[in-house]
Amino acid sequence: MHLSQIVDFLSTQGMPSELCGDGDIRIDAVNTLEDARPGEISFLANPRYERQLKTTKASAVVVSRKHRPSNGLNLIRTEDPYAAITALMVRLHGHRRPPQWGISEQASIAGSALLGENANIGPHVTISERVIAGQNLTVYPGCYIGPGCVLGDDVTLYPSVVLYEQVTVGSRVTIHAGTVIGEDGLGYAPVKGKWVKIPQIGWVEIGDDVEIGANCTIDRATLGATQVGSGTKFSNLIAVGHGTKIGPDCLFVAQVGLAGSVNVGKHVTMAGQAGVVGHIAIGDNATIGAKAGVINNVEAETTVLGQPAVPINEAKRQYAVIQRLPEMRQRLRDLENEIRELKKLLAEQDGAS
Amino acid sequence: MHLSQIVDFLSTQGMPSELCGDGDIRIDAVNTLEDARPGEISFLANPRYERQLKTTKASAVVVSRKHRPSNGLNLIRTEDPYAAITALMVRLHGHRRPPQWGISEQASIAGSALLGENANIGPHVTISERVIAGQNLTVYPGCYIGPGCVLGDDVTLYPSVVLYEQVTVGSRVTIHAGTVIGEDGLGYAPVKGKWVKIPQIGWVEIGDDVEIGANCTIDRATLGATQVGSGTKFSNLIAVGHGTKIGPDCLFVAQVGLAGSVNVGKHVTMAGQAGVVGHIAIGDNATIGAKAGVINNVEAETTVLGQPAVPINEAKRQYAVIQRLPEMRQRLRDLENEIRELKKLLAEQDGAS
Amino acid sequence: MHLSQIVDFLSTQGMPSELCGDGDIRIDAVNTLEDARPGEISFLANPRYERQLKTTKASAVVVSRKHRPSNGLNLIRTEDPYAAITALMVRLHGHRRPPQWGISEQASIAGSALLGENANIGPHVTISERVIAGQNLTVYPGCYIGPGCVLGDDVTLYPSVVLYEQVTVGSRVTIHAGTVIGEDGLGYAPVKGKWVKIPQIGWVEIGDDVEIGANCTIDRATLGATQVGSGTKFSNLIAVGHGTKIGPDCLFVAQVGLAGSVNVGKHVTMAGQAGVVGHIAIGDNATIGAKAGVINNVEAETTVLGQPAVPINEAKRQYAVIQRLPEMRQRLRDLENEIRELKKLLAEQDGAS
Repeated sequence: MHLSQIVDFLSTQGMPSELCGDGDIRIDAVNTLEDARPGEISFLANPRYERQLKTTKASAVVVSRKHRPSNGLNLIRTEDPYAAITALMVRLHGHRRPPQWGISEQASIAGSALLGENANIGPHVTISERVIAGQNLTVYPGCYIGPGCVLGDDVTLYPSVVLYEQVTVGSRVTIHAGTVIGEDGLGYAPVKGKWVKIPQIGWVEIGDDVEIGANCTIDRATLGATQVGSGTKFSNLIAVGHGTKIGPDCLFVAQVGLAGSVNVGKHVTMAGQAGVVGHIAIGDNATIGAKAGVINNVEAETTVLGQPAVPINEAKRQYAVIQRLPEMRQRLRDLENEIRELKKLLAEQDGAS
Repeated sequence: MHLSQIVDFLSTQGMPSELCGDGDIRIDAVNTLEDARPGEISFLANPRYERQLKTTKASAVVVSRKHRPSNGLNLIRTEDPYAAITALMVRLHGHRRPPQWGISEQASIAGSALLGENANIGPHVTISERVIAGQNLTVYPGCYIGPGCVLGDDVTLYPSVVLYEQVTVGSRVTIHAGTVIGEDGLGYAPVKGKWVKIPQIGWVEIGDDVEIGANCTIDRATLGATQVGSGTKFSNLIAVGHGTKIGPDCLFVAQVGLAGSVNVGKHVTMAGQAGVVGHIAIGDNATIGAKAGVINNVEAETTVLGQPAVPINEAKRQYAVIQRLPEMRQRLRDLENEIRELKKLLAEQDGAS
Repeated sequence: MHLSQIVDFLSTQGMPSELCGDGDIRIDAVNTLEDARPGEISFLANPRYERQLKTTKASAVVVSRKHRPSNGLNLIRTEDPYAAITALMVRLHGHRRPPQWGISEQASIAGSALLGENANIGPHVTISERVIAGQNLTVYPGCYIGPGCVLGDDVTLYPSVVLYEQVTVGSRVTIHAGTVIGEDGLGYAPVKGKWVKIPQIGWVEIGDDVEIGANCTIDRATLGATQVGSGTKFSNLIAVGHGTKIGPDCLFVAQVGLAGSVNVGKHVTMAGQAGVVGHIAIGDNATIGAKAGVINNVEAETTVLGQPAVPINEAKRQYAVIQRLPEMRQRLRDLENEIRELKKLLAEQDGAS
């Protein structure tokens, strides 16, 4: 694509832009400012990397409208450079195309499984009885799909994904390697110092357009459903407890953990290593800070931080005071000395009068 | 089962109960208060859900003896509703029954492996030389059992479980999908700025009646054994370091991490995302709070919290004071002002006298 | 080996030592002080275990030069007992020798894959098109190596390791079971309340002599490379975000998490459950404490602790003051009372004068 074509393309995507430079330059790929070579386009979205504009070998850079042209670099100025470069990456590189296995002879597929058109099933896969899947199913090697699972259209399971029985998965869902869905939760009744297992007879429901990272674990519910809402995206190593219900369009960063019976609203962001205790609710559009320990309900539209998690302003105030503690302690000591002096003075006055 | 039969059944389980309602009503399943339909029985164990009693469609509800009958709902009153509903779930639903593979032709089983009666081995499984297993072994697809592993009776390995060589597993043990046992721990000797690997020549011993969640990792010991005691239950994504010894009947919530050479007593509870440094001891019946960072020995029968973890009362006191810090800072300022006033006053008096 | 031979062997390893005891005693194995039996040698490196010297059944013990001979125990005194016992473990026990599968007929290997000499490929393995590997490759059962991956010599992949496409791995690299490398990172552009996937077109580069623990996840970069430097060692359940670059000879303990675009220097230590936010830098030889939450750049050679992480001295000072907060609060109350008394006294004086 020539730079002028890129400007045209962005315009068709609803992202008007302005070219400062040579529209005839040819672009083959997207790359970072640091790694780009001639023939590649890059972008500046995080001001942290601004100084790399001076050294980049990219043939052009997508920047925000605030950014002024300088030193001969070809620039495409647009409102949201990150959204623009995303559109360009999809256009120039596309998404991953899986190997084409057809239905591998080394896969083990139960007779009662019903797979839709264009199923692409790798070797060493096990698909159990009564599984039903829509069209364009891709299952990478080593996956296990348990009895009675139901999958929508355009589902991709990367290697070694495990779905226990009766997990339902929507359409356009991607699950990364090693993730386990539907295992039993930690359900035991304490009886005379022993833990007696409670059968976990519920199931898991994954909505449409969900993407789950690698090596996550999502417990089946004890009763009823554990749910992940449509459009929600998980990073890696995330644990979701039994019976927890997560709304649509959430974004969970790596190593987040939710106990059981948590209710998470829509478009909630949870940063890395955050944790949530059981039986509480997190409102719509809430943001949970990294490493936060959430032990109470979180109101919609709020940001919480800390352990235990409190609203961000409170957390910052607490933290600011903690940093001043050594100073406060010194001031306390000074006061004690002053009082001692005052008392001595008063005693002297008293003696003198 | 009719409600009257349920009361009889609970009585045979050592859980006397009282029926307030119609003993002829037929019950087919257990469900939550929220999801139950007619023909299903539910329960109330957590007061948080008490208001759902008014809206539930369940045909009957198991409640505690404190709970008074009202508004025509069929109630079974008993001392421990959670234990009662557990017994009912086992009676009405039973535990998971695995697919029956016999010994799959797509499994790879070494000639010297000795499997007991009724082995049920799925496709794509690898069982190595000199493995010995008791009766009723179930191995789901994709598992790997390393050379010389010894397994008791009634063991179930869910898909993609990996046991490195010489792991011993007791009877009635369940290991969920993706869990790895017996990998090398982080054992290196620092030599001139490099990390020189120390052979990890120990092994792992899992006791009887243990259940391990999904995607956990339990290191083999450098020397001797890493141990998980009988009756202990793990949730998911738990890391256990080399040489750590965990006693019987413990309960570990998701994402707990223990470093190496930790000694954990019996019936210890560790809440989610808690961590323990190496070479310390945790006493019997101790409870480690969620996200706690344990850096010192924990006495038996105590509960610790915080980072670093301290006894719960101390942690709560610290936290309460931290919340009051902005107020304390204001009081400190007030005192400084008062002292200043007093000194001015004294100086005036002094001048006046 | 006889004890006298052990002393000779250590000497050849550049670890001069002194034998206090009987050089003719025969040693077959290394073991812990607690578990050792006659014929075994043990060691004392951590003073915590010193009392076990009195009860050990080991035939000899490697100790530091500070340690004085006593009670008839055969001792080998040397400067670094831990390094010495490591050398002895390698000499007496060696490293794990994998099963010999040759190239299993139950493996699935693409026609265009090029494997070097002595490839040892277990059953249920998938090696994709255009994979290139050096000599002595060992791949345990259930692994998946994606299209275009390039591996050096002497690489070992334990069971169920997953390498997505175009991951490059150096020589003498070991990856433990269940680890996933090259999955897509959490890359989405927010568009009208939805998350639009950004193609992750970068790759992952693992250096030479790297060891990665079990069930880790290392994201491929959005653009360019995610890197793990030569000689770096990971424990288990570690998450590395897209585009993060980790230098050589680092040591990461279990459950550490790094967000994307982090730059980690050489020989950095990260203790268990530590976390690092995106787009920051950690200098050479820095140490990140257990559970630390790093949100700012960390200077080379420094140790940080806490959430948010601060230099260790500051963290300790803060923590010491927090522990004294209840006492400070009491002192504040005392001061308030004293001031009240003083004011009363002054008022009385004033009235009296």
